[in-house]
Amino acid sequence: MVKAAVMPGPNVPIEVRELPLLPPGAKRLEEGAILLRTLYSEVCGTDVHLHHGRLAGVPYPIIPGHVNVGEIAEIGGTVLDPDSQPLRVGQVVTFLDVHGTCGRCWYCTVAKASTRCPARKVYGITYSANEGLLGGWAEMIYLKPGVRVLPLPESLSPERYIGAGCGMPTAVHAIERAEITLGDTVVVQGSGPVGLSCAILAQLSGATQVIVIGGPAKRLQEAQRIGADVTLDIAEFTPEQRLQRVRDLTHGRGADVTIEASGVAQAVTEGLAMTRDAGRYVIVGQYTDVGDIRVNPHLDINRKHLEVRGCWGSDFSHMWRGVQVMAKHGERYQWERFITRSYGLEEANQALDDVAHYRTVKALIDPRR
Amino acid sequence: MVKAAVMPGPNVPIEVRELPLLPPGAKRLEEGAILLRTLYSEVCGTDVHLHHGRLAGVPYPIIPGHVNVGEIAEIGGTVLDPDSQPLRVGQVVTFLDVHGTCGRCWYCTVAKASTRCPARKVYGITYSANEGLLGGWAEMIYLKPGVRVLPLPESLSPERYIGAGCGMPTAVHAIERAEITLGDTVVVQGSGPVGLSCAILAQLSGATQVIVIGGPAKRLQEAQRIGADVTLDIAEFTPEQRLQRVRDLTHGRGADVTIEASGVAQAVTEGLAMTRDAGRYVIVGQYTDVGDIRVNPHLDINRKHLEVRGCWGSDFSHMWRGVQVMAKHGERYQWERFITRSYGLEEANQALDDVAHYRTVKALIDPRR
Amino acid sequence: MVKAAVMPGPNVPIEVRELPLLPPGAKRLEEGAILLRTLYSEVCGTDVHLHHGRLAGVPYPIIPGHVNVGEIAEIGGTVLDPDSQPLRVGQVVTFLDVHGTCGRCWYCTVAKASTRCPARKVYGITYSANEGLLGGWAEMIYLKPGVRVLPLPESLSPERYIGAGCGMPTAVHAIERAEITLGDTVVVQGSGPVGLSCAILAQLSGATQVIVIGGPAKRLQEAQRIGADVTLDIAEFTPEQRLQRVRDLTHGRGADVTIEASGVAQAVTEGLAMTRDAGRYVIVGQYTDVGDIRVNPHLDINRKHLEVRGCWGSDFSHMWRGVQVMAKHGERYQWERFITRSYGLEEANQALDDVAHYRTVKALIDPRR
Amino acid sequence: MVKAAVMPGPNVPIEVRELPLLPPGAKRLEEGAILLRTLYSEVCGTDVHLHHGRLAGVPYPIIPGHVNVGEIAEIGGTVLDPDSQPLRVGQVVTFLDVHGTCGRCWYCTVAKASTRCPARKVYGITYSANEGLLGGWAEMIYLKPGVRVLPLPESLSPERYIGAGCGMPTAVHAIERAEITLGDTVVVQGSGPVGLSCAILAQLSGATQVIVIGGPAKRLQEAQRIGADVTLDIAEFTPEQRLQRVRDLTHGRGADVTIEASGVAQAVTEGLAMTRDAGRYVIVGQYTDVGDIRVNPHLDINRKHLEVRGCWGSDFSHMWRGVQVMAKHGERYQWERFITRSYGLEEANQALDDVAHYRTVKALIDPRR
Repeated sequence: MVKAAVMPGPNVPIEVRELPLLPPGAKRLEEGAILLRTLYSEVCGTDVHLHHGRLAGVPYPIIPGHVNVGEIAEIGGTVLDPDSQPLRVGQVVTFLDVHGTCGRCWYCTVAKASTRCPARKVYGITYSANEGLLGGWAEMIYLKPGVRVLPLPESLSPERYIGAGCGMPTAVHAIERAEITLGDTVVVQGSGPVGLSCAILAQLSGATQVIVIGGPAKRLQEAQRIGADVTLDIAEFTPEQRLQRVRDLTHGRGADVTIEASGVAQAVTEGLAMTRDAGRYVIVGQYTDVGDIRVNPHLDINRKHLEVRGCWGSDFSHMWRGVQVMAKHGERYQWERFITRSYGLEEANQALDDVAHYRTVKALIDPRR
Repeated sequence: MVKAAVMPGPNVPIEVRELPLLPPGAKRLEEGAILLRTLYSEVCGTDVHLHHGRLAGVPYPIIPGHVNVGEIAEIGGTVLDPDSQPLRVGQVVTFLDVHGTCGRCWYCTVAKASTRCPARKVYGITYSANEGLLGGWAEMIYLKPGVRVLPLPESLSPERYIGAGCGMPTAVHAIERAEITLGDTVVVQGSGPVGLSCAILAQLSGATQVIVIGGPAKRLQEAQRIGADVTLDIAEFTPEQRLQRVRDLTHGRGADVTIEASGVAQAVTEGLAMTRDAGRYVIVGQYTDVGDIRVNPHLDINRKHLEVRGCWGSDFSHMWRGVQVMAKHGERYQWERFITRSYGLEEANQALDDVAHYRTVKALIDPRR
Repeated sequence: MVKAAVMPGPNVPIEVRELPLLPPGAKRLEEGAILLRTLYSEVCGTDVHLHHGRLAGVPYPIIPGHVNVGEIAEIGGTVLDPDSQPLRVGQVVTFLDVHGTCGRCWYCTVAKASTRCPARKVYGITYSANEGLLGGWAEMIYLKPGVRVLPLPESLSPERYIGAGCGMPTAVHAIERAEITLGDTVVVQGSGPVGLSCAILAQLSGATQVIVIGGPAKRLQEAQRIGADVTLDIAEFTPEQRLQRVRDLTHGRGADVTIEASGVAQAVTEGLAMTRDAGRYVIVGQYTDVGDIRVNPHLDINRKHLEVRGCWGSDFSHMWRGVQVMAKHGERYQWERFITRSYGLEEANQALDDVAHYRTVKALIDPRR
Repeated sequence: MVKAAVMPGPNVPIEVRELPLLPPGAKRLEEGAILLRTLYSEVCGTDVHLHHGRLAGVPYPIIPGHVNVGEIAEIGGTVLDPDSQPLRVGQVVTFLDVHGTCGRCWYCTVAKASTRCPARKVYGITYSANEGLLGGWAEMIYLKPGVRVLPLPESLSPERYIGAGCGMPTAVHAIERAEITLGDTVVVQGSGPVGLSCAILAQLSGATQVIVIGGPAKRLQEAQRIGADVTLDIAEFTPEQRLQRVRDLTHGRGADVTIEASGVAQAVTEGLAMTRDAGRYVIVGQYTDVGDIRVNPHLDINRKHLEVRGCWGSDFSHMWRGVQVMAKHGERYQWERFITRSYGLEEANQALDDVAHYRTVKALIDPRR
């Protein structure tokens, strides 16, 4: 039996339960499956949304935890890593939470937009705790056959990797959509994990001026530490002042690229205004419905010749690219410093509360505590 | 002296005036300038906006008419066409209304978005009648040195060319932004000249299903004539029915690409909903401020992984490409059939009224009448 | 037992053999598998290459035939089509010959270049006849679970579909790489099935001048029938004359886009010269090693600011898009007219000989004859 | 009168001559022109080519020097910088050597490939010394009206700017063509100024592994200093060893992107082999004709699904972006350390000889010495 922090339903406290190692009915590890001893699992804004019942179709009770790092405890036969090398017991690996994209539907094959495949399942979100150890807030995680597993390079510690958490692949995807060019000014709206990783990746993609708008102060200090040229605290500057400041920093033109990573609907109004004519605006932070905004299609989009791009989810390429970046630039950005605190399974409710109230940059579950 | 239909100011009747052939102070045609004998000048929605005073900074009195075709009457020295051949007196040509982009500002050189150059001037819109014959509603047009002139190929008559009018380069630009792929379903919102040309160019860019939403019936008949697979009359179907119909025609997914060419703010709300996840939405019809709309950034953009692209103005490449298309596919699409009526200079007020009340598909000024 | 035309090895005559309906060891149709009653299977240049032993690693004996159309005879449980509708017995379908891409290797997941996945298998090429009915030159074809099946729309007959054959998805992929713009001049080198479909798709992608270079005369007549503006017979014009002709047709500049679909190494030298500065050259026809050429990197590529793109294989999106195009434009292009002759299984040797000696545009195996 | 180092013709020693300040016939500075007091002018490989007569159509005698930095001595009226601010006497500026692109020909307007405009003139290359001070190896430079002038930001010293020289905009253009993605491995062939700047910009564009192949040792030390992960000295490793090393560093796949910046024809053969399937190869270093190579279109391009892109010249956007990068990352890369030596006008022959024999990384003319 294995301990797991289970979310029984929306707005109900997390409970630690003992669950069987293998899925219902299984006698041994299936061919192609892997058992992972959890090192760290992330507590992210999505988990708060899950706890508040803001996502549709969640099969409570669930084991939360969609971005994880662990040590391979057992392998069902031979499973290959992306470089076609066999995985080994004892390796420290992460895996893509999104799983089971069908590879046959129209979205997978024709649109090549696998993040819209209706068959996709997500560890820690779309699996019931009754189906097995399919979330990271547990001592062990059961990786079904076909789950994409990625060993961490030697130069990347599990702490550093999980310090970036799911913000990293999300940010890699957002930056892919942003198409930054050498010399660009990039505004990042939001200073949470996604925003901070966007601020890093914008620099690594050629931006020569990165402006982070967010708060609270502790997060903006992190933004400065990781190289933001300018930070604007939303508690200190009004929206008008923020817009004016961005214009002052860009010869009156606005940012070449703005990335919304705030989760606040009104940020979109502000971001449209902050972006220069013929610029690009990427919306990645509106993960849940936080309300409508008013848009003037003539002034905000058509006359500006603006490009607005939504960015949903991420795929294995984003995870892989994020790991390459962290392995290379680890000393420079020290993502582990985003970690505010680790919580044991028993402390999961506290963790959720701290994240919900912005007391952390990055919170972790460490089931070994 | 030359006759011209002059718009003295907003909401004041057009008057026919006699104006000098050459600009103030000039004794002869400047080196590089050209005098054009006007064959046809278009009356488009923009002229109605000009007449209603809805564009800012217009130096009334003006000679309207920004898309034109004429015969070369006189050339100041040698002027080359885009193929580096000298232009000749008697040639039938069109020219790009946008003129004077500086080629030195940040938008021209770094952003490569010349349609946002602050120095740009536009024949028929930004020039005062006191500066010369710089609009098409006149017997002659004075082409300043540097204006980009394009001879019509032999297979393209002036009537056919002007039948498409400024809708054609605008549509070429919108289609460039739309990045249609072979087999796509394209929805075009709006059945005016821009919408109809978009419907044609979508077919010529690989779309295998083109749905035109608009009205009145006469325009939708034109849409059917030029190959639209489905037309939806907004007088006949509610927005909900239109949305349902598009879904029914796309296996429930929505259009791969939607192009807004309607000039109605609410069309944008509808267009966002009609476009499939990971699809593309081009906004080209919001040429003036027709009000705000409500947008839900989560549902409408982020979760849909949608791309929204404003499209402003057009440049010479769009005009050139439009002419190639019309020269090749003239018999198939017969753009001259868009022409509802030609008006003499004296009838310009009637022309504006007919266009304002949607009594025409395409209205022309023919100063020879 | 089922009749199949088996290629026992390179340069050995094809033999008709009787083979079991199900794969070795199977008692019944696996869950997810499908039995297809073959209507038509294509004989293409690749089959000639297979017969001459020019492809490496082929597990002779094989059943050739990689592009096929058939009627569903039996389904193992429920199998969905790309629109998530269950397939039905009696439906006329095609399927993607490429199969078994792993979805987990670096090429599948990071490079997103599934046509380079090392695990990919191809019906009619990489399967031995001992493994089952895994090629189209047979009365029945066994579709393994996971093979991507596409029902033909009602407006697309099996004859018309197979008339285009594997040239269509290959051409869709080449055209995707070609990024044609409205008004472009496109040169297609080669007038076989790939070249002819490229000539059609170039028109449908906005080209206003399509020049086909190839032979023999019968194929160039087909090129003219399907709308090529100019055809140049290589038996009639020297390479210098062909180059001059292309320049004459493009104001001395060369083609905007050139597509090599000839299978002749020297065509690449010619194609580089025929393409304008800052143009694009797609190489799709060099499917086997037909020798080296000389290239001058300064004159041919660097100074021309040229883009050269290889194009290998095709994926399901290309097949799907090809089917949409054929369903829409069937009457206009009548691909069935490419069919020179149908051969019974017993006539497979004759079919190969006719294809090898360019006596056909498109040759078919019809196992029902 | 002003001193200038004049190249009278191919293979003839440079002579210092006294030339008039203003162009022939001019009485005063034209409206829009600028007189620049030269601080530094570069000696680059192109100047060696000019001296060896390897470029066609050069109007000897010429004043070489196409990339320059100077102090504004006099302005003809008001001239705006790209941010629409008036330039001031005393400002330290650079300017784009390419000048006079017509903005009207087909290449400028339709293809939008201004580096192929036939009207373009280049300071230091296409102007005769008889036409004025139109090259940088002189005490003063005459900037014609319309020349694009860019003030150096305060954080960018003239020494640092000229240390990068024309290699920087060329590299910015090559990197634009390279479309590097986060996590890519990039091979740079060549360790001269273009190659070194490509190695820097590849890092700043997201590459996490940069491999520089070149020599001699001094240049590779510079490559290491500026952050190359691996350097391979061509004097030390055979082509086979280099290829093997690249494969070993990329899990056997080859580089995602390879950039040729070597000027050696055979490097192209090697670069094609070093690039992974579905990768990208940019050829920027074949500035003159250095001979043919053998290419196998099947193995090298088609089956690899490779993309090969020539890259010719650069435009103002590349210069502007290069300056932003240098202003931001100046302390990190210290381009001034590329400068091996400054030469007075009288030492120009020595400078050319040193550059021709690879005794320098970057050589300068300083007319004040």
